[in-house]
Amino acid sequence: MTSRDGYSWTPMDGLKPGVPSIGVIQPAQNLSSHKDQYDVIVVGGGYTGLTAVRDATTAGLSVLLLEARDRIGGRSWSSNIGGYPFEMGGTWVHWGQCHVWREIVRYGLTKGLENSFDLSHGVNHFEFNTASGSAIMSHDDEDALLASALQKFTNVDGAYGRNIMPQPYDMLHVPEAARYDKMSAKDRVEQIKHTLTPHERAGVEAFVLLCSGATLETMSFLEFLHWWAMCGYTYQGCLDMLITYKFREGQSSFAIRFFQEAMASTKLSYSFSTPVKRVANQSTGRVEVETTSGKKFTAARVICTVPLNVLNTVTFEPPLEQGKVTAAGIGHVNECVKVHAEIADKTMRSWSGITYPDNKLMYAIGDGTTPAGNTHIVAFGTKSSHIDPEANIEETKKAVQGLAPGRFDKIERLVFHNWHKDDYAKGAWFFSPPGLLTDHLDAMRARHGNVLFANSDWALGWRSFIDGAIEEGTRAAATVKAELLGSITSPRARF
Amino acid sequence: MTSRDGYSWTPMDGLKPGVPSIGVIQPAQNLSSHKDQYDVIVVGGGYTGLTAVRDATTAGLSVLLLEARDRIGGRSWSSNIGGYPFEMGGTWVHWGQCHVWREIVRYGLTKGLENSFDLSHGVNHFEFNTASGSAIMSHDDEDALLASALQKFTNVDGAYGRNIMPQPYDMLHVPEAARYDKMSAKDRVEQIKHTLTPHERAGVEAFVLLCSGATLETMSFLEFLHWWAMCGYTYQGCLDMLITYKFREGQSSFAIRFFQEAMASTKLSYSFSTPVKRVANQSTGRVEVETTSGKKFTAARVICTVPLNVLNTVTFEPPLEQGKVTAAGIGHVNECVKVHAEIADKTMRSWSGITYPDNKLMYAIGDGTTPAGNTHIVAFGTKSSHIDPEANIEETKKAVQGLAPGRFDKIERLVFHNWHKDDYAKGAWFFSPPGLLTDHLDAMRARHGNVLFANSDWALGWRSFIDGAIEEGTRAAATVKAELLGSITSPRARF
Repeated sequence: MTSRDGYSWTPMDGLKPGVPSIGVIQPAQNLSSHKDQYDVIVVGGGYTGLTAVRDATTAGLSVLLLEARDRIGGRSWSSNIGGYPFEMGGTWVHWGQCHVWREIVRYGLTKGLENSFDLSHGVNHFEFNTASGSAIMSHDDEDALLASALQKFTNVDGAYGRNIMPQPYDMLHVPEAARYDKMSAKDRVEQIKHTLTPHERAGVEAFVLLCSGATLETMSFLEFLHWWAMCGYTYQGCLDMLITYKFREGQSSFAIRFFQEAMASTKLSYSFSTPVKRVANQSTGRVEVETTSGKKFTAARVICTVPLNVLNTVTFEPPLEQGKVTAAGIGHVNECVKVHAEIADKTMRSWSGITYPDNKLMYAIGDGTTPAGNTHIVAFGTKSSHIDPEANIEETKKAVQGLAPGRFDKIERLVFHNWHKDDYAKGAWFFSPPGLLTDHLDAMRARHGNVLFANSDWALGWRSFIDGAIEEGTRAAATVKAELLGSITSPRARF
Repeated sequence: MTSRDGYSWTPMDGLKPGVPSIGVIQPAQNLSSHKDQYDVIVVGGGYTGLTAVRDATTAGLSVLLLEARDRIGGRSWSSNIGGYPFEMGGTWVHWGQCHVWREIVRYGLTKGLENSFDLSHGVNHFEFNTASGSAIMSHDDEDALLASALQKFTNVDGAYGRNIMPQPYDMLHVPEAARYDKMSAKDRVEQIKHTLTPHERAGVEAFVLLCSGATLETMSFLEFLHWWAMCGYTYQGCLDMLITYKFREGQSSFAIRFFQEAMASTKLSYSFSTPVKRVANQSTGRVEVETTSGKKFTAARVICTVPLNVLNTVTFEPPLEQGKVTAAGIGHVNECVKVHAEIADKTMRSWSGITYPDNKLMYAIGDGTTPAGNTHIVAFGTKSSHIDPEANIEETKKAVQGLAPGRFDKIERLVFHNWHKDDYAKGAWFFSPPGLLTDHLDAMRARHGNVLFANSDWALGWRSFIDGAIEEGTRAAATVKAELLGSITSPRARF
């Protein structure tokens, strides 16, 4: 099936909206015309919603899933073009990410992963194009450069962040850490710039922008420290946990497991292409959910998985608490642009590169070999040089070509999803501006009557990641099960 | 409540069997006299059984838990003496351990951890007593010494094990790795001994014995590589993930959550102090379980969580497949002795030490401060110098004192559990001898008719750990739910 989401471009067909994905669900709804009352309504079918739906239905609760898109997966899904998966959003997983890995083991998929990197042949080096000139270096030298730069960046405590953030699931375990949320990445660069070589400075800036999709000024330094701590306080850990292991058959092959398990329970009703406009706590204790087309459903509990940047497009009754409204108004700052390029040059599989700051795409790696034997490159841009890749394909091609001048002249295919222009995401993965987390994380996580809010955007651990989505879906379902079925979880686990 | 398990010794009271624990369940059984048929019988109430029981009951299945001991937790439980938890078995957890951490987040316990190490005051150093003399060094020098030694030990591929074991959940992802299961740790030491300083050699030997509880000759080198890979291929990762974070209120405060959640489902029947002697697949497809006192129960499925070293004490009908019988006959090799000592010297909290090879306890750290303000030391011995600590308390005290000559003269309390002599464990955590895993892991994991076998001893990831127990309990419950309730998991996830 073909989703409305995403774009592809080839020299022959030009730009086409929509790409095929096994995450598209047909039929698009299975509602019975008589039934409009459920135990639980889950708004949104990304990993958070899928986890909540699965956990609630398999516990015996009747659940209605309402999803605005024509597919599952939210900000993580794979297109399938000629049998080859291009990852449109969240991609990489690792056994150090507890929630997603628990599911990978549970679904028997531990042998279903492959390594994005294949540093074994052809143009097997790192290409670094900076304002002060270009350099070619080995991947070992690339790693040493970035490790050195990031150690300087994170070493606020003489222990590379270990002392200031010893328990990253309890980010403010050392209360003094809060002050680093007032700092931007730019502020931190200013503090250490005299210790950085020009290459180190360009490297660290590009790397932290790769993580945030933002600008140095708009990204919280503390949130980067949190990523770093989650990755074991090392650059090698960042490589391993952020950008190495992906599903051989694509993200959607994983997401569909959750959906199928919920369907097998016979307790799941669903309706795709069904955006929600209003969520109302009723005096009876039930919650009414109204779709944009005016259909109404009620449930004992609603789990709202709408992302932070979209939350204020839904009307809540009574109105949401101010903290949540304020947080959604501030929003997160990730405007990452991720572009897949199929390159005719077959020797580029082992290449990686950074072109920064003077290119619209900034960081790229060889990510695979397509069925045609071409090199598959995945490239990332950020808010600091934002493009809408569908707006001007020539500009997008130029941005790809700028990553490896002379090497990427012949582009056979482009595939991408413009998350920034996506009405149901309004940005890529969560990355916080300074102050947002210390001021509003608790408000983002709080319930509103019988409406629970769950999203990777406000997870405790792998916030922004698929793992954080599953963390949040688990939390929401556990609370609903405890309240509706009487099972026990810790009070602290509740909303 | 006081468990029959464990021992304590004080100068005043001498040696006493049994220690108090919140893991002891009262009443010891809740069986209805009329009911002897269940959906599922779970044999064993360690973390594997607790997870299976919880997942099955909350899915609506009727479950009978039969446990030989008077308490939950199996090889992980905490005594509670004067409000202070001494960990009798498995202790440490980390957010890189996906199954256990998922549960910690789910139960809202992320703020419930503390650090075993407090390297801040008093006698703040590492004491190294080796055959070639004694040394005092800083903890930084301790770390550098062990990191260097372990890098040499693990570096079979020029990448510290990363190339030979890139995906530790798929241990033989690189088939060539299998040959390292034919090697013992002793074989590996022989290969590299010319590259090691005397301190490095004593350090690496003591550290790998700490992991295995065995002897260098009897422990698989591949299994140590697997631990190393799980820990991110670094000594710092080993420290973080193996021996740092523990529950402030003790392991049993965590285990009880699983039990309470299952109880709240109203689907759990249980009987403690009820060993099982026979498990029989019947021609009807049901399974009969007979206790040592002759009571019989039947279920559609049985989840047997009996540890490998005990498995051959249970009679199975029809007899188990030869591979499983052989594996259980070989058994694992961990004879770790773990002794807690309360030391009158209040300045030893920041001390750690290795006395090797000429002492009956080998490795110890300051692990806490007791309510009386004394230093709490936890010490480990192995099969290479095995003692039964209750057999001769003077010998045990001497072994504690030998760790820090002159410092530990005044011992106020000893607490321990002799796992080697425990009829329901016959050893501490799993550690494989050479060949066992490559020859028999699949057989250990295989089902037998409608009897499923689940134990951390044959987990894929954190085998031997609490995490692996939860992995296995999750796997067993998912299979049972799929078969009895029709929910979907991958065929690969099934037994």
